[in-house]
Amino acid sequence: MEYKSDIEIAQECEMLPIEEVAKKAGIDWGTCEPYGHYKAKVDIHSYKDAPMKGKLILVTAINPTPAGEGKTTTSVGLHDALCKTGRSSMLALREPSLGPVFGVKGGAAGGGYAQVVPMEDINLHFTGDFHAIGAANNLLAAMLDNHIKQGNELDIDLNNVIWRRCVDMNDRQLRNVVDGLGSAADGVAREDGFDITVASEIMAVFCLATDLADLKERLGRIIVAYSRSGKPVTAADLNAQGAMTALLKDAIKPNLVQTLEGNPAFVHGGPFANIAHGCNTVQATTTALKMADYVVTEAGFGADLGAEKFLDIKCRMAGLVPSCVVIVATVRALKYNGGVAKADLNNENLEALEAGLPNLLQHVGNIQNVYGLPAVVAINAFPTDTQAELELVQAKCKELGVNAVLAEHWAKGGEGAIALADEVVRACEQPADFRFSYDVEDSIEEKLNAIATKVYHADGVDFTPKAKKQLDQLVALGLDKLPICVAKTQYSFTDDQTKLGAPRDFRITVRNLKISAGAGFIVALTGEIMTMPGLPKRPAAERIDVTPEGKIVGLF
Amino acid sequence: MEYKSDIEIAQECEMLPIEEVAKKAGIDWGTCEPYGHYKAKVDIHSYKDAPMKGKLILVTAINPTPAGEGKTTTSVGLHDALCKTGRSSMLALREPSLGPVFGVKGGAAGGGYAQVVPMEDINLHFTGDFHAIGAANNLLAAMLDNHIKQGNELDIDLNNVIWRRCVDMNDRQLRNVVDGLGSAADGVAREDGFDITVASEIMAVFCLATDLADLKERLGRIIVAYSRSGKPVTAADLNAQGAMTALLKDAIKPNLVQTLEGNPAFVHGGPFANIAHGCNTVQATTTALKMADYVVTEAGFGADLGAEKFLDIKCRMAGLVPSCVVIVATVRALKYNGGVAKADLNNENLEALEAGLPNLLQHVGNIQNVYGLPAVVAINAFPTDTQAELELVQAKCKELGVNAVLAEHWAKGGEGAIALADEVVRACEQPADFRFSYDVEDSIEEKLNAIATKVYHADGVDFTPKAKKQLDQLVALGLDKLPICVAKTQYSFTDDQTKLGAPRDFRITVRNLKISAGAGFIVALTGEIMTMPGLPKRPAAERIDVTPEGKIVGLF
Repeated sequence: MEYKSDIEIAQECEMLPIEEVAKKAGIDWGTCEPYGHYKAKVDIHSYKDAPMKGKLILVTAINPTPAGEGKTTTSVGLHDALCKTGRSSMLALREPSLGPVFGVKGGAAGGGYAQVVPMEDINLHFTGDFHAIGAANNLLAAMLDNHIKQGNELDIDLNNVIWRRCVDMNDRQLRNVVDGLGSAADGVAREDGFDITVASEIMAVFCLATDLADLKERLGRIIVAYSRSGKPVTAADLNAQGAMTALLKDAIKPNLVQTLEGNPAFVHGGPFANIAHGCNTVQATTTALKMADYVVTEAGFGADLGAEKFLDIKCRMAGLVPSCVVIVATVRALKYNGGVAKADLNNENLEALEAGLPNLLQHVGNIQNVYGLPAVVAINAFPTDTQAELELVQAKCKELGVNAVLAEHWAKGGEGAIALADEVVRACEQPADFRFSYDVEDSIEEKLNAIATKVYHADGVDFTPKAKKQLDQLVALGLDKLPICVAKTQYSFTDDQTKLGAPRDFRITVRNLKISAGAGFIVALTGEIMTMPGLPKRPAAERIDVTPEGKIVGLF
Repeated sequence: MEYKSDIEIAQECEMLPIEEVAKKAGIDWGTCEPYGHYKAKVDIHSYKDAPMKGKLILVTAINPTPAGEGKTTTSVGLHDALCKTGRSSMLALREPSLGPVFGVKGGAAGGGYAQVVPMEDINLHFTGDFHAIGAANNLLAAMLDNHIKQGNELDIDLNNVIWRRCVDMNDRQLRNVVDGLGSAADGVAREDGFDITVASEIMAVFCLATDLADLKERLGRIIVAYSRSGKPVTAADLNAQGAMTALLKDAIKPNLVQTLEGNPAFVHGGPFANIAHGCNTVQATTTALKMADYVVTEAGFGADLGAEKFLDIKCRMAGLVPSCVVIVATVRALKYNGGVAKADLNNENLEALEAGLPNLLQHVGNIQNVYGLPAVVAINAFPTDTQAELELVQAKCKELGVNAVLAEHWAKGGEGAIALADEVVRACEQPADFRFSYDVEDSIEEKLNAIATKVYHADGVDFTPKAKKQLDQLVALGLDKLPICVAKTQYSFTDDQTKLGAPRDFRITVRNLKISAGAGFIVALTGEIMTMPGLPKRPAAERIDVTPEGKIVGLF
């Protein structure tokens, strides 16, 4: 059977004018600014005092594998199914990053018959949010180096500048640079580097800010360097936060688009899921909760990283209480977790499936026991799944009191996810007792130990001497009573990406502690995290093209 | 008397919905895409076969001085006056660059009561065109370095990579860098650097492209490096032109906005006026000519650079024939040209004025004699101008058969420029015999000598040994039969910025010849041209701010 590509399906869709989509969402068109005929920004100021009435549903997943899981696709399918069955629902997704579109990954706006559209726009510049974030990031960098060049009144230590420039491109050439070269008129030579825009702290700040005033305050708190006496130098010390906020004043408004089935969706913000918290903006999520009875949102990577940060960071900061968590799994990915090579995933293999299932079951148990929330398992259907395999997953989930529902939205759209929607609605009615995995007032060691033992099922946390020193510094600066954002491999519960399934008898090693004072969390790095990807030998960019009439082709 | 700032005047303006502005311009709203309520992009495909009916009016100026001249302001005022007096008129301006907004210059959307609005949007991200150009520039750079890293099949000479990255920010720290540092996984170490986005060849390509197909072809022709055997390596060799065009597919559509008086205006494209040709897009200009009887447009710097390139490059490539050229001067700037210090410009000084007038008169003579076009002088009024000073300018212009008209649009809007509009309409009816200053089939030496002797009134052109070698190379590559884009100081007819007025007995030295194969011209550099500005000690960014309600303040 020949499948249509995502872009072919998306381009066949007859989109509704965005004004109609706004109406469907209960959004007053007078509060919208159109960006073309199928995108709009919503001025949420008008909804400032409206109460949040919706039930919040988080879509997360097992640990990712090369087999693919489909969190965004399942979020779209679930939302379409909720709408199809007459429920009032809203979707709040992340924006894709431009860089990966030209690299290996391609587009990131769902897949098959569960996509948000216009797919090409969402994957390219969309409404310019990421460009605005990049500009704010690079304005701060330019002002910082200009300050040093023009006399360095703040006595910034050239060996302790931590703010990096960014570009929304996979460009490994920029990972490590020496800039400020040339003549006396050309800056001050120092080691420097670029990150991809989504890894900028501004992206995390942007996603956590509750309004323009909060945005500006957070931007001002960003630490860009330390003085030679060890004092933090902030964006506010450089008087940069006003101009940075000016650059972000439109970006901060949530973007309204639609699914292939014409249902409204916010697509807004997209921070890295390792060095940042990996969820869409607080503004989009809270506004959605004021508009609909059900709000479907997603978090990056597997539940150990994505759901943990969504619950412990985003929900804590924004005062959100989720009603249910959907954990997406595929039979193929579970078999991969059970030790099957990628090439052999098409064959039925109940033994491998059973070996891989503990990964799913541990995520389910964490949601239930650590966070006190009802869980639903969504089995994102593949044509190669067998009946026996599906039944095995369902039986194992049942033992934890959780229903695993087959979801066929990829092939059938909302129609294919009706059973999932019904189960999610049922789960939302279950008694819940939402709690965080740690108390923010605990010490950094205690908080990290709580995450590691409760969520990862590790025996505990070790700190390298360097990390220990950084920890003492954060305590001395009074910056230790903040949530923790763990940067860890997404492929394993452990900090070793080769350990699949649900490992036991391991410890987590924290190698680096970094403060994101604007975002308001401490990043704990457990290994080398790549903040600037590279392009593959044959980049996707080589096959992307435009017809003379302006139709984009070759974007997957 | 207390004057209102530009942003105060702009924010007091009750703008028309952009749909009404489109209607006024005779643009079918069905061909527009709104960007908010006061900006739109026009899909000009629908106007492809319509004939150009309008008379094209170029607004240029004397050599710029620190006293300020006001080309954009005069263009807006003239257009408003044409509309006010019942003529069918359209305006086609350049987009401001983001970098200078945060540096010294501030905004660039006109001034006083002759502005295009929404001023804050136009000066910040506008519709994202420059970000799209930056992304296309940096995608090409990433693909180039990735090609080198992944085996370098094209045998690119690491010492002969000419493509630079860009950022729309005044950031001197990035002028000269070494990138590709780090470990074996991190790129290939080489000398590199960044330009401000407006200096990217993509900006020039973007402004000269006639449609999407032409854009893609031009992008493909861009030379990014040379192989070790001296062969040019192009964007097409890297298969980058399709993805780059995809990034530019929306940007290429002209942006529609309005003046303070609600008259339609295109604001689209903005290339550097030294290493590029410094005019708005061909697409906006030609589309405007299909819609209105009069089209007012502008060119960068003084007429020796701006008008020369507009006429010899843009008009030649796009097949445009202007009907009249307006040369903007101020009494203050002419006195500065006559040797008065900036602090003393407020005092009447007929002697200095007379000494400075030859600068204006030589520009006027060039337009008449070199290009065969009718000229009008617009005296952009300042409160300190005296009657005697104005009369002197008018008398001297009269000797050349040209009327110098006092224009008070800055203080009075279109009403203040009615006399100018009437004179321009009269000039457009004069017999004209438009010709270029050189034949494109002549040799590079001949073309440069023609510009230097006819336009600058130099005795001739000298080439440094390096430039001579580059000249031979261009001939060998068959790239010499292209128009010339001279990069020269804007402050003088000569290549020495201290020589004001209308100097004689000098020669022009060409130090560097560079091919912009995508744009389709040869850049002749006569000195060091700064393609990445820096910030001043107290950047304008420090005073730019946003109120909690989203109103921008401190942007001038």
